[in-house]
Amino acid sequence: MEPGPSTGSRPAGPGPCLNDPGGACQATSACSLRPAGAEPGCSVAAVLPAGGCGERMGVPTPKQFCPVLERPLISYTLQALERVCWIKDIVVAVTRENMEAMEDIIQRYQHERISLVESGVTRHRSIFNGLKALAEVGSNSKLSKPEVVIIHDAVRPFVEEDILLKVVTAAKEHGAAGVIRPLVSTVISPSADGCLDHSLDRAQHKASEMPQAFLFDVIYEAYQQCSDHDLEFGTECLQLALKYCHTRAKLVEGSADLWKVTYKRDLYAAESIIKERISQQICIVKDAKEDEEYVDLLEEMLKRDLKHVNVTSGALHHSDGNLQQVVLQKCYNFVCVNAQNFDFQETQKLLLMLEESRLSILYPVVVVSVHFLDYNSVPFGGKMESLLRIREFAKEVKKRNILLYSLLIYYSQDKLKLQESLRQGATIIDTLIKERNPGLIGQLLVA
Amino acid sequence: MEPGPSTGSRPAGPGPCLNDPGGACQATSACSLRPAGAEPGCSVAAVLPAGGCGERMGVPTPKQFCPVLERPLISYTLQALERVCWIKDIVVAVTRENMEAMEDIIQRYQHERISLVESGVTRHRSIFNGLKALAEVGSNSKLSKPEVVIIHDAVRPFVEEDILLKVVTAAKEHGAAGVIRPLVSTVISPSADGCLDHSLDRAQHKASEMPQAFLFDVIYEAYQQCSDHDLEFGTECLQLALKYCHTRAKLVEGSADLWKVTYKRDLYAAESIIKERISQQICIVKDAKEDEEYVDLLEEMLKRDLKHVNVTSGALHHSDGNLQQVVLQKCYNFVCVNAQNFDFQETQKLLLMLEESRLSILYPVVVVSVHFLDYNSVPFGGKMESLLRIREFAKEVKKRNILLYSLLIYYSQDKLKLQESLRQGATIIDTLIKERNPGLIGQLLVA
Repeated sequence: MEPGPSTGSRPAGPGPCLNDPGGACQATSACSLRPAGAEPGCSVAAVLPAGGCGERMGVPTPKQFCPVLERPLISYTLQALERVCWIKDIVVAVTRENMEAMEDIIQRYQHERISLVESGVTRHRSIFNGLKALAEVGSNSKLSKPEVVIIHDAVRPFVEEDILLKVVTAAKEHGAAGVIRPLVSTVISPSADGCLDHSLDRAQHKASEMPQAFLFDVIYEAYQQCSDHDLEFGTECLQLALKYCHTRAKLVEGSADLWKVTYKRDLYAAESIIKERISQQICIVKDAKEDEEYVDLLEEMLKRDLKHVNVTSGALHHSDGNLQQVVLQKCYNFVCVNAQNFDFQETQKLLLMLEESRLSILYPVVVVSVHFLDYNSVPFGGKMESLLRIREFAKEVKKRNILLYSLLIYYSQDKLKLQESLRQGATIIDTLIKERNPGLIGQLLVA
Repeated sequence: MEPGPSTGSRPAGPGPCLNDPGGACQATSACSLRPAGAEPGCSVAAVLPAGGCGERMGVPTPKQFCPVLERPLISYTLQALERVCWIKDIVVAVTRENMEAMEDIIQRYQHERISLVESGVTRHRSIFNGLKALAEVGSNSKLSKPEVVIIHDAVRPFVEEDILLKVVTAAKEHGAAGVIRPLVSTVISPSADGCLDHSLDRAQHKASEMPQAFLFDVIYEAYQQCSDHDLEFGTECLQLALKYCHTRAKLVEGSADLWKVTYKRDLYAAESIIKERISQQICIVKDAKEDEEYVDLLEEMLKRDLKHVNVTSGALHHSDGNLQQVVLQKCYNFVCVNAQNFDFQETQKLLLMLEESRLSILYPVVVVSVHFLDYNSVPFGGKMESLLRIREFAKEVKKRNILLYSLLIYYSQDKLKLQESLRQGATIIDTLIKERNPGLIGQLLVA
């Protein structure tokens, strides 16, 4: 069965997240905002084993709790799962020591539909605990036994709805399904003396990745029947379904995004990917009263120089909700133009709106307060000093995960000089948005 | 045989690169500067197949030529090999189309001991071409047939001398040797209908990584005898040595650093790792005539706030070569203090020395020109304007891969205020060094 339209599907239509470059648009409240897509037509829950100690990472913090843009990795994975409306419950297995930290994460990042269970000493035991919580539903439980259960890793944050739908749909038909990827390295079998015994044909083998999905009754029976040895030393859920329920899992080709954050370098990669994704859209906020030529020129320059970035613009004074719409579309980058105006009024209004929107709960939001200055006509020192006041604002809004910078662009009647200033301004804006570095907040940059 | 002292070994001793955090210290001329280490006691050459097209990366440029900090990835790998003095020749197999680009890379980054051959249509054919170049040594060739040959990937830039020595030493004894790593994912075998046939026991299998090493005669004979099918579809050199020469390769556990840059995320990871490595040391350059208390305070603050960073200091006026010594030790980060001095004389002297040292050929060098200003006593505007002249210097030295920024630190008689300024100064210096971003060069930052 292909993951096409199924019983519960609604017609697909345009929505605010259609241009989402692969997952940036994953707010806790995003469910109702997302375009209606295909649904699997059965009840679905997910189990996330998150009891690992991260020994391969070489850092004391378990990898699922390592910060990425100051937010724990597991929160990104939860976000990726909870934006999928048809996943009813998400059961996370964590160690007793991390239970409180996990509750804090859920509260701080406003995760929904999450239940916590205590993890076991191995991955399989943790998954089993999660399944038990879904199976042994009492009158006190808010959980209910699903038809299909997804098993995913806490350290694979980039899972997309389409692959989740594919494995669930395949599991409904075959009883079990899992994602595979081509092998990156050849796999070999060593002999007892530490020499090569044989190497495996790369074309005949695949890497088994996550997510996987199972008919709940199949995988639960497999776990109930399986040996202590399996629970201690096994690594593969698909193998348990095969061994104890004779269920041959359907294998689904996944994308490279499904890789597991295992080493410190993977954290670097994850942070870079997330930064790239939330830098795809810039909104230029203009004072509607101002209609200076160089504001439009800056917009043109940004559109031209920043390839792959969607540049939009709006005004705070419009009451038609244009800008609010942009915020709802999860734009994390704002260029606020205060033409000829050195008192930050526009910027302060924008900051207020952003704080009210709670946009910055999940990702740091960049605001660049832009000021234009005619070098020839305006005395330099005084203006500069008033601009330096931005450092105080920046410290204040940093507490709410908003990164505020200021940019002074010289304008000149000389077309060439103006072009160069605008180009440098665009480069600086691009740099601030891509780096998203809290170390430079409150700085006044000059183009 | 353990990779301990061998025939050609020199006594190990302290040297300028001993604190090198894993490969930053890899200059083309580093060979003679490195501490004497163990050598394998036989002639060694290396072959690098670099004819791949990088289809998995999802970018048009083959991955070995993708820029990392503006330098092609393969240059980092060449640098890692050529700093190992006992590797006599490095043969790189590239496509005819990339031959000229590769020659440019060799010239631009001053690589030595490199010979180019044309790659074949598969990895095995490229390696075979490299081996042929080493075997068929004529009177016109600067190459000579080695006793042991290393085979490495152009896209594994973080290979260290110790692992190279281990595989060469093992190959000398066993005829063949290769690096292995634990499997990250379970490996499974699919059936013809796309379902799970069986999963492999993760404990019984390993990922075969690079580098590998072989007695030259063993691997050359294996390639001469092997079938077209092997040359077209094979992936594992160790398997060829086993199949055609009955040589069972010794398997050597390698570090996580040996991973293969395969996907775009790996490029992000590589860049982050390299940035981290070249940010481990900061040299504070002081004017020997000045002896201001706050210069020392800044040094203290940097030492206290930047953990894991080695902060040293030196003066340009000393003729004892103290600072030159620091440069020779491959420090890529300089904080140049121009106490009370707004004309950049110190910074300009430092820039001149850096340009002469050619330090920035391989890595972008960060210079932060620091100026102290008493907010109460000095008029603001004029000084600021003179400081803004740094933008012109910055543009100029960027051409030579030096990233120049300026930092203004307010000092106050109020101890608490001074502490806060110094702390923010340290944060800004840390950010500039870690990000190493050309988009903000010439900016005047304020602490």
